[in-house]
Parts: sequence; C-alpha cells; structure tokens
Amino acid sequence: MSMESALSDSSAAAVQEEDSSQLVPIKAILSRSDKGVGLCGQNVRIGGWVRKGRVAGKGAFAFLEVNDGSCPSNLQVIVLATLYKLRDVVATGTSIHAEGRLKLPAEGSAQSIELEVENLIDVGTVCNAAKYPLPKAKLPLEFLRDFVHLRPRTSIISSIARIRNALAHATHTFFQTHGFLYVQTPIITTIDCEGAGEMFQVTTLLSDAERLEKELKETPPPSEADLKVAELAVKEKGEAVSLLKSAKAGKDEVIAAVAELTKAKESFSKLDERYKLGERFRLGGGIPKKDGKVDYAQDFFSRQAFLTVSGQLQVESYACALGRVYTFGPTFRAENSHTSRHLAEFWMVEPEIAFADIQDDMKYAEAYVRFLCQWLLDHCYDDMEVMSDQTAIQRLEMVANSKFHRVTYTEAIAILEEAAKVKKFENKVEWGIDLASEHETYLTEEKFKAPVIVYNYPKEIKAFYMKVNEDNKTVAAMDVLVPKVGELIGGSQREENYEMLKHRMLEMGLPLEQYQWYLDLRAYGTVKHSGFGMGFERMILFATGLDNIRDVIPFPRYPGRADL
Amino acid sequence: MSMESALSDSSAAAVQEEDSSQLVPIKAILSRSDKGVGLCGQNVRIGGWVRKGRVAGKGAFAFLEVNDGSCPSNLQVIVLATLYKLRDVVATGTSIHAEGRLKLPAEGSAQSIELEVENLIDVGTVCNAAKYPLPKAKLPLEFLRDFVHLRPRTSIISSIARIRNALAHATHTFFQTHGFLYVQTPIITTIDCEGAGEMFQVTTLLSDAERLEKELKETPPPSEADLKVAELAVKEKGEAVSLLKSAKAGKDEVIAAVAELTKAKESFSKLDERYKLGERFRLGGGIPKKDGKVDYAQDFFSRQAFLTVSGQLQVESYACALGRVYTFGPTFRAENSHTSRHLAEFWMVEPEIAFADIQDDMKYAEAYVRFLCQWLLDHCYDDMEVMSDQTAIQRLEMVANSKFHRVTYTEAIAILEEAAKVKKFENKVEWGIDLASEHETYLTEEKFKAPVIVYNYPKEIKAFYMKVNEDNKTVAAMDVLVPKVGELIGGSQREENYEMLKHRMLEMGLPLEQYQWYLDLRAYGTVKHSGFGMGFERMILFATGLDNIRDVIPFPRYPGRADL
Repeated sequence: MSMESALSDSSAAAVQEEDSSQLVPIKAILSRSDKGVGLCGQNVRIGGWVRKGRVAGKGAFAFLEVNDGSCPSNLQVIVLATLYKLRDVVATGTSIHAEGRLKLPAEGSAQSIELEVENLIDVGTVCNAAKYPLPKAKLPLEFLRDFVHLRPRTSIISSIARIRNALAHATHTFFQTHGFLYVQTPIITTIDCEGAGEMFQVTTLLSDAERLEKELKETPPPSEADLKVAELAVKEKGEAVSLLKSAKAGKDEVIAAVAELTKAKESFSKLDERYKLGERFRLGGGIPKKDGKVDYAQDFFSRQAFLTVSGQLQVESYACALGRVYTFGPTFRAENSHTSRHLAEFWMVEPEIAFADIQDDMKYAEAYVRFLCQWLLDHCYDDMEVMSDQTAIQRLEMVANSKFHRVTYTEAIAILEEAAKVKKFENKVEWGIDLASEHETYLTEEKFKAPVIVYNYPKEIKAFYMKVNEDNKTVAAMDVLVPKVGELIGGSQREENYEMLKHRMLEMGLPLEQYQWYLDLRAYGTVKHSGFGMGFERMILFATGLDNIRDVIPFPRYPGRADL
Repeated sequence: MSMESALSDSSAAAVQEEDSSQLVPIKAILSRSDKGVGLCGQNVRIGGWVRKGRVAGKGAFAFLEVNDGSCPSNLQVIVLATLYKLRDVVATGTSIHAEGRLKLPAEGSAQSIELEVENLIDVGTVCNAAKYPLPKAKLPLEFLRDFVHLRPRTSIISSIARIRNALAHATHTFFQTHGFLYVQTPIITTIDCEGAGEMFQVTTLLSDAERLEKELKETPPPSEADLKVAELAVKEKGEAVSLLKSAKAGKDEVIAAVAELTKAKESFSKLDERYKLGERFRLGGGIPKKDGKVDYAQDFFSRQAFLTVSGQLQVESYACALGRVYTFGPTFRAENSHTSRHLAEFWMVEPEIAFADIQDDMKYAEAYVRFLCQWLLDHCYDDMEVMSDQTAIQRLEMVANSKFHRVTYTEAIAILEEAAKVKKFENKVEWGIDLASEHETYLTEEKFKAPVIVYNYPKEIKAFYMKVNEDNKTVAAMDVLVPKVGELIGGSQREENYEMLKHRMLEMGLPLEQYQWYLDLRAYGTVKHSGFGMGFERMILFATGLDNIRDVIPFPRYPGRADL
C-alpha cells in the first residue's frame, strides 16, 4: 500500500496502513489537505522520535512532539502518566512506538489533530539526557557536523535528506522517462579522465607490506649464512647427480638423486625469496620497488589504480552502443581544498547522448534542471519551507518557469567588457579567459536575472575531448550558470572525428596507448554525441540556499576528516 | 514526450517523436502489438548501428539490420546505392543516422516493417573492418571481456545492460513507493563494517612520496654540513642577542638582533625539515613512518581510510532518525578471488527499517525480490528471451508468484540431516555449521523447489550487530535462498539493547571507541530495527541465468584486471 494512495485520500476514510510493520507515516496524517482533521476518531500506530516534550496537567500526562522522518511536521502525542514514567518519555531523542486514537485538540491549540496513546508498544529512552549532544531544537550546522550519526534527527538535516532523496529520484525519473539507460560506471579506474587532477590511489600495497612486516617479525627471514648453506646443498646434490650419471649408476639411484637436487633447489629458492623480502624491509622499503619506482605490478590490479573523477569517458562507450545513457555515482578529488564548495567525495550525474549535438545537449540540460526544480516544488514544498533562505522557493519557481538564456562565450565576454566600464571585476575580462565566479554571478544574477547557458568556449581552456568548432578557435562546450551557485552544469559535444581527436590528444600530451579504446569508439562506427555533468551537491546547494556543501551530503569527506 | 506514450499507441497514429534530437527509438516501432505494421507510410528519423548488412539487388541497394539500443530487435533499413557507397555501410558496427519512410517488406520477408532511407544524415564508417574486434554476431562472453568498451554493441551485453537498468530502476521504484528515503552512504570510510574483511586502502601517501622524491632529485636536500652551518648561525645570533641585552644596548638594536635570530631559526628549521625528508628517502622509506609504523596522520584524511564493504552501519544512523531508508551504491572487497561469483567492486542494495523486527524484515525482502521479478517480466521480456538460459523466464515467473518458504536454521539442519541419510553432502551437516552452497542448493532447488528464507542462525557464525534471541544461542538473522544462485539476500534484526550490543562487541574483540557512535544510536532513543543487503549483480545472475558475474557489470574489477 503506497503512501501516495494514503495521501491522495483527504476524506474521512480510514488511514491506509503502511505495509507489514503497520505503521502509519505521520505525513499521511498531517500532509492531507485537511491537516488530518478528517481522521478524528481513527486508531493508528506510529513510530518516531520526540523532538520536544513536556509534562502537563500537574503530572497527569505529557505532550510529545513526535517526528518520524516522513515529513517535517511533528504529530502531537499525549501519553498518560498511567502508561509510563513521564519524566522518561519527554526527553528530546526518546523513541516512541505507540498505538492510539486520533482526536481534535483542545480549542486554541496550534495543532490540527493529536494522538492520544492507548498502547505504548515500545519506548527507547535517552539514558543520561544531560549527555545527549543534540538536546536543543536549533543548533548551528557547523556544530552538527561533529555528530554525523545524530544530525539526521534535527529538523534541518532531515529536510535536507528528504530533498536529496527527492532530487535523486527525480533524476532517475527524468532520464528513464526520456529513454536513457542507467549505466554504473566504475569507481576504481585505471584512466584519468581529465589527463590531470589530483586522484586518490586505491591500493593493497600498504596493507600487504604491514602484513608481511608483522609476519617477518614473527618468523625472521634467513640470514646470509643460512642462504649460503642452502646454496651449498644445491651444489653438492648437483655434483652427486653428475657423479652418478658419469658412473652410469642404476636408473632408480639417479632418479632418487635428481629428486634430492630438486628438493634442495626448491628449498634454496624459498629461502632466497624470504631473504630478499627481509632485505627489502631491513632497508626500510616495505613497498615493493622496481627500477627505483613503486612496483605496481605487485598491486591488486597489477597496475596503478585510482578513484574515478568522472564516469564520462567510460559511459561514452555505452552511448556509442545504446544511444542514450547516464551515470549517477560517486566521484572523487584528492584536492587539499578546505572551502565550503569542495568535497573529496561527491556525486555526479552524467548523461551521454548519441546523435546529439551541442544544441541538443543544451536542451536536455535545461529540461533536466527545470524538471528538478518543479519536482521539488511538487514533492518537497514543506521541506523547502524549513530552509532559512526565504528566497529559495522563489528561485525554484523562477528556474522551473524560465527559458534559459543562451549566449556564446564571445557574446558573454562582450557583455562583461561592457559591464566592466561601470563595474569593477577583480579578474580581468578579455577573450580567452576562463570565466571567474564573479563573472558568472554577474551574468546570471545581474544581467539576465535567470539561468544562462554560455557555449562555444576557447579551446585552449577546455578538455581534449570537446568538439572543435569550424572556427578552429572554440570548442562546442557549454556551462549552465544559475543564481546562487554559478556553474551548475558543464557539458560539451564530444569530438567524433578520429584524426582530430588524436591530434588534440597529442597536442595536450596525452599517452595515446592508454586512450586507444577511446579512439576505437571513433574508428568503428563513430557518432556525433554530447553529454554533460552535474555536481549533485551543487544542485542541492542551489535548491536549498545552504552555504556549505558539507551539510548536504550525509557523510562529508574533506582533508583531515572522514567520520564513520 | 515519453517512450511509454509512444509505445502505448499501437494504432496507426503518428509515431511520437522523441524530444529534441527527434529520433524515434526503434522500440517505439517494433515493440508495438502490431510490430509496427500500423506505422506503414510514416516518416521517421532513426539513429543506430549496423548489426548485419548485405548488398542486394545486384548492387542497387543494401539491407541493414540496425539496432539503436532501445530494444533487442533490429530494424531492417534499406539504403539505395544512389545515397552512399554500399560497401561502406554494410560493415558491422557502422553507425547510421537517417530519415525515411516506413513500409511493408516484400512478401515472405521475416520483417514486419522496414525503413527505406530517403535522407542519410550521417554515416560513421568502420575504418578497417578487418581490424574491428567484434565483426561476428555471436562471440564467447569470455572473449568479449577483453573489449569492455565495445561489448555493449553485442546483442547479449546490450540486453544485460537493459536488464540491469530495469532492476536498478525497479529498486528505486519499490523503495520510494514504500516510503523509504535513498541515503547515499560514504564510499571512503574509516570504519570496517564486519570487523574483518579485506579492504582496499584509499591514500595519497604513495603519490605524495613520488612527488617528493622527484622534487628532491631536482632540488637535492641539504647535507649534514649545511645543517651544521645553519645551526651555528642560530647559536651566533643568539649569543649576539644575549650580549646586546647584557650590555643594555638600545631598544632598536636589540629588536634588530632578535629579528636576525628569528630569521636564522626559521632558516635552520626549514633546512632541518628538508634534511629529514632527504634522510627518509635516502633510507628507502618514501612513506612517512612513526614508531616503526606508517604515519597515517600524514595521509589525506589524517588517518587510515578504506573503500566501504557495506553501507549498513552508516545507514542505520539514518534509519534511527528517519525511519525507513535504503542505500544503493558500490562496495568493495580486496579478496584475491578469481571465481565466477566474486568481484572486487560490486553494487549493493541495503534497506534499513526502524520499528521492524525480523518478521517484518523477511516480509520486505520477499516483497522486494518478487517485485523485481515481476518488473522484469513486465519491462524486459524481450531482453529475457535473448538469454541462452531457457529456464530463466520460468524462474522469474515462479519467484514472482511464489510465497517464500520460511524455516528456522534449526529446522533447516533437521531437513538436511534427514536428506543426508540418502544423499551425500561434501560438507558435514550439524547444528552450528554455516550452510554450504550445496546445502542452500538442496533446500531451494530440491526440497522446496522455490525461494526459502532461513532464519535464526547460531550466533557464533554471525556478525556482532545481530539481535541475540531469547534462547541466547541464536540471532535474528535471515538469508533468502533462491534457485540458481543460492544466497541472494542476507539480513537481520539489529541488536538495539545497548548493554547486549556492547557485550557482543567486547566478546568479538571490537575496538569500542571506534564504535561509540554506533552505541550512541542505542543510548539515545534506541529503536527495534532491521535491514538486509542484496548483492545487485547476484540478482542479475539469478534473473539472467548467466554464470559469470564479470558479464553482468559494465566494467568488472578483479585481481589483476581493471580495464578503463
């Protein structure tokens, strides 16, 4: 039984019970158009956590504001003193699993409906309430970052979790509806998408070295003398075999001697291996080396492996076979960046479309962003109201309903040069520069007061895989700029011409052999194709109006921090 | 305009054109109930790749079987010699972007409808067809693994891609419909879920060392003599300050001398740091060490970090705040395993449900698996027909329509002991063992001939976080066993009792301080909760009947291999 069907019913009919655990989500009660009034008299079972509680009626009962995560609103729950020790249920954080009857509250109450508990199934108390780190309703986001395991119990972080969930589901819905296939590109990769960038390494060399070192301490390696003895044994056994052979000894005797020689050789080779291992560690180098460099042939994948920075190149191989595809997964940057806009681990949405040019690419990007905004308005309005940025909802409405402006990079530079006559930019404006944040902000917030797509950038500032335009000066790249966050999406038509792509790769010093597979896509039935990437957390920042990216991902990773 | 709306129209009405690029997916033509016959006379634009082509009519035209990834069927496309050099369009792999008219084929044709091209917009030829690695229709899966960038162009791999896409979308649809929130748990983690397991390390220490080593070669570190000189300078400047002070020199003079001393100290400290760095590399240890161990304080996250093996523990913190949540993301094992069932990188679906016990957990697991099977029957029947396992569709139908059997572990052992009287198992059957594959196979394929859920396992063979039952011998754990793959899902009710959990952690030697956050969830408003994990690729193996897990993930990672 879906929540949707429960919600669509705003009459006095029975509340639809949620499947097996028989809980009724609080959303199904409070998000009805009548705010639950029509359910008066119904029996329901709920489960949630006390956001705020107080003993009332001179100790006869307690009022609890209970939240179950299904919506930002709390249900007022009344527990009589005959059911439980009231002091133990009113603490913030207490869990309540209860059955009772919905009733109208006393006149003058701020509530539309309340639950009077008849059967308290379970209570999870807060042992030592004084030590509970989040007793107060409003705590600074920065403070909450030290409690990533408890912060989803706060109003703000739970609303962000629902908004994030809604945007993820909207993403899948948008692409599935448009005939795109979800392709899960690899997290561990042996290529570097941008030909640069700081990447995390994925390895078992360090743990292998630690394990070996421990093992060598427990069972020390042979000494040089041990090794000499073993070597001597091989020599002796060898001589014995020669002797027997030249003496034309019996077959059995020779076989026996050869067997002993083989044994001695094996024993020597084992000792030798362990001796060399011992030497490696004695000389301080636990990591295996070859020709002075780390010997990655001994690593798990027999070569150097990294965490992906983008799934684009890999997903192109699926677009060049299946037409329309997208990837939505985690990506990584080992940048030593402590800003409010950077994470070491973040999620990216990357569609890739065969038979599409840069114009099609822009159409899809615009349709996708507008779809996301409308989806939030339709599905998370109540969560949006929790955000302290009062302009966030307006911004969503504006984007959902605006046609995005499109200007070429050259036009954008002209606009900025004109603006620079009366306004001071910190960064010089001239054809060839990469647009700075202040330029992007000017275009989207001041000049157009709406989303803007800038396209056809100078090829010098863009990646090797972008299609070179006929002017041979620009590439068919585009960025979607939106108010509040600036660049939200970056995309391009990809170079589908084999020779031109190879030329660009050589020009930019890329190792051709590593990218032969990528050239293959152009050698065998090449197609015009385009795609883009959207930083998922950037979209959440844009939607919520929050300032720090660490607050919009459940478990933020940045230099020096990776809790849990 | 969605593909669905195009598909639902099986009348002779105009084919709905797919959004901006105006391509009509071949599925919208051939998957209609009339196989496209009703569209005869319509003009459409398509884009796809030639699976097979041949010149006919004495060189007057070519027949091309074109596939665009939207469905397993190919559209027959006719290109006249007046439009293009026929030899160049018939090669397997050639891309075709074309407009034309749909018409009925000549009588006796195997096709229901064909496209006669009027405008050949683009052709991507196969340069050097002799070198194209996948010219033949049927190639062994093992061979295809060497061409992960081209294999999605084959019939089998493209059908698997669509099945995988459908299962992913079905997963989100199932959980969203049941009020679960998608929580993206971290990929990089500093905890180890199972308290054991082989994990990949995520580090920047190796690349930092390589960078430093290179830099030290370019600018050699100071010698011991250089360091001595700098040390001496500090001493001299210090003495100078003392002298001036004791001589009661002027304030300005003292300030200047102190400034010089500070400068000398700084200079010494810089040299000293570089000297130590030089020594570290001279002694062979590029990796920073402290007390004989790798100094992870100098790593990116200031501590040892790994790739996650499961998101369960982290997602529990969201379940204990938001009620119903699930995670669906990549997980990793650095196991040196070369079997057809193991990958180093694979995807897991892990729901976690507050206020749910083991019985609820089993209900959800059953409902989810049956939903997935029904979804494939509803959405991917044609792709399922491509699978060589002719029983796969029957298996889906059976599971979609069967109530899953439930037996306790103790009952399962009794059944196996009974069976062992007439049947030989390789592994001994007795209470306390972990069920071996052969036991699971017997239960699901021979005894019940249907999915079976085994629950209440001996606590000794299960993880620390599973709820200990009242018998104090078993835990509330459950495994879903299905024909063909055996264990598909593993789950449990989680121990919600603080003291019992702590006791179990101590018993199993876990470092309490690392798990204090996990105990916190039980200290502050604990709730009964349960969850399970499903290996996504296992589900695909089960659905498709394929034998090797490397064929059901786009870019398989295993020891020695991580292509692209």
